Amino acid sequence: MSRIDDLVKKLETYHRELGPLPIEWRDGKLRWLDVSRLPWEEKYVESDVVERVAEAIKRLEIRGAPAIGVAAALAVALAAFKARGGEEAVASAAKRAAELLARTRPTARNLFWALERMEKALREGSGSGAEALRERLLEEALKIQVEDVETNLKIGEYGEKLLEDGDRVLTHCNAGSLATAGHGTALGIIKTAWKKGKRIEVIATETRPLLQGARLTAWELAKEGIPFKLVVDGAVGYVFSARLVDKVIVGADRILLSGHVVNKIGTYMIAVLAARHGRDFYVAAPISTVDPRAGPSDIVIEVRDPEEVLTILDRVRVAPEKADALNPAFDVTPPELISAIVTERGVARHPRGSSLRRMLEHPPSE
Amino acid sequence: MSRIDDLVKKLETYHRELGPLPIEWRDGKLRWLDVSRLPWEEKYVESDVVERVAEAIKRLEIRGAPAIGVAAALAVALAAFKARGGEEAVASAAKRAAELLARTRPTARNLFWALERMEKALREGSGSGAEALRERLLEEALKIQVEDVETNLKIGEYGEKLLEDGDRVLTHCNAGSLATAGHGTALGIIKTAWKKGKRIEVIATETRPLLQGARLTAWELAKEGIPFKLVVDGAVGYVFSARLVDKVIVGADRILLSGHVVNKIGTYMIAVLAARHGRDFYVAAPISTVDPRAGPSDIVIEVRDPEEVLTILDRVRVAPEKADALNPAFDVTPPELISAIVTERGVARHPRGSSLRRMLEHPPSE
Repeated sequence: MSRIDDLVKKLETYHRELGPLPIEWRDGKLRWLDVSRLPWEEKYVESDVVERVAEAIKRLEIRGAPAIGVAAALAVALAAFKARGGEEAVASAAKRAAELLARTRPTARNLFWALERMEKALREGSGSGAEALRERLLEEALKIQVEDVETNLKIGEYGEKLLEDGDRVLTHCNAGSLATAGHGTALGIIKTAWKKGKRIEVIATETRPLLQGARLTAWELAKEGIPFKLVVDGAVGYVFSARLVDKVIVGADRILLSGHVVNKIGTYMIAVLAARHGRDFYVAAPISTVDPRAGPSDIVIEVRDPEEVLTILDRVRVAPEKADALNPAFDVTPPELISAIVTERGVARHPRGSSLRRMLEHPPSE
Repeated sequence: MSRIDDLVKKLETYHRELGPLPIEWRDGKLRWLDVSRLPWEEKYVESDVVERVAEAIKRLEIRGAPAIGVAAALAVALAAFKARGGEEAVASAAKRAAELLARTRPTARNLFWALERMEKALREGSGSGAEALRERLLEEALKIQVEDVETNLKIGEYGEKLLEDGDRVLTHCNAGSLATAGHGTALGIIKTAWKKGKRIEVIATETRPLLQGARLTAWELAKEGIPFKLVVDGAVGYVFSARLVDKVIVGADRILLSGHVVNKIGTYMIAVLAARHGRDFYVAAPISTVDPRAGPSDIVIEVRDPEEVLTILDRVRVAPEKADALNPAFDVTPPELISAIVTERGVARHPRGSSLRRMLEHPPSE
């Protein structure tokens, strides 16, 4: 298991450098920070049951496209380690796990990308025996996790060049450590710029219904000591009008080759306002977020339970009893509103089909 | 007191026709529905203390530009009725009340308009003796209240012509009965169209931070039986992209002769999205909302307590302890994004200085 040990050691190093990673493989179990309880409680959950991990993804204990991908990959390995019997039993447990995990959330590209990598590892490990197959799957999952941290650090390096000392950056939802294997994408860029001494100030939208901005982005920024102010989502027009925003950086759940970006509900309206006020709008995401096949009409926007709107985090009912709500979790931002997409392979300016395709195939020059 | 009796009778008739009015003069006291407790509790508060009414306006027990104007006018009358002594004591109590009320909230034009009317009545009643002055002030306040209901019914008549059978109308915040003396402005148009048999469906934005859409608009629409769906403020882009909105109608807290509209935070971004998607954006407000003197640079945007953002209605803390927030209560929508302004004097299409000025002076032809 030396390659596995190497990967685990790397993750431990990142843990020390970047702070606690939200998801960890630990002695045949998965351990994750239940981010749905933040900022009230830092609760870690441990389980070796795939169904429990799937539930954690559905219930947003684990959320953020890259984090979902990492958790799903590790959960497939979990199923393989738990399966009793020979290679066939291990393979079929892993396959069943992948099928279950694929049904958790429909929009994030990284989930399917991670499961495709696990399925490929499963095919490649076929015929090597139960134990070798288990290790092959765990190795692949840990590789996905390590690569995600390294990807985010690279996104941070490419992206921080887009920020200047003194910039006031608006971000939406949470595309930080808590949405990835560590460091974060959009928030990773802000952290890298901050660590290089650029005095960045953040405006964070609270991001109803689930308040990832108020709960998670604020939590991460407070930990890093980066100055920030929360605003309600409806204040986006005001902050541009009042010239309080220099740049926007957000994450992505799926990026099409056409340059369309699927991200948290509210992203599109921010992009429209940024364009109107002549401010750059950047998207930061790993290349695994790019969907090489789908077109804009193929995008499935997850519509979640109306209760998320009618209540606040299941704690306070805000609407009267007879009220109904529409609760789309994502929206689509068209490419003409996007100044650049930052991935671990570089910066695609004014992303359209050709520049993203080039980036998928090889790193573009900046 | 026959003119006062006439006004009180008129209000009783409206009460029967339109449902309970949110503010009432009752035996020398003011009685109001504390809308900050809706939809959990229908609590009426009664007081003859001006300071208590001012507090109710500040704490949003009474909110909505026209309702604030009506409450302030009645509170000036309240002070006059409570003052012991001769005419001088009555006049000085009324003046002090007006000064106190003017400091409650800076943005709503109707507050200052109503106080100016009360000050004019005070000057006109000067020399008539304590009792006549009290009655003159109460008469003026009740006139403001009756006129507001009648204004809203007229706005409803003019505005409903802009809606077609089957229209899906987006509204923001609450510009209904609960924001006025009765019926409402933006919501009044929707109610009038509905009563005339037009099948309207409403999309109501929840309107963080104080959730007037989720709490108040939903409450009013449910009472009327008008079908509606709540969305989070961030879903505004989505609902236009998904072609779920035909028209937008909102209220206003202040309208400038330049055509700029000051309204609840979030209005500007909705107007930008409506324009991008080729949807009409209507503003409904009494002519008393028009500020004939101020220019865009004179507008004072009330910035409220950050706690309103960091918590949900003082019930749940959502942000971590160290977080800070920026909480502007209003934003400014420029005239080029507005299809028409509906007042009790008619419909000003593509409102700019001249059309609004004409409307201020006499009813425009449609």
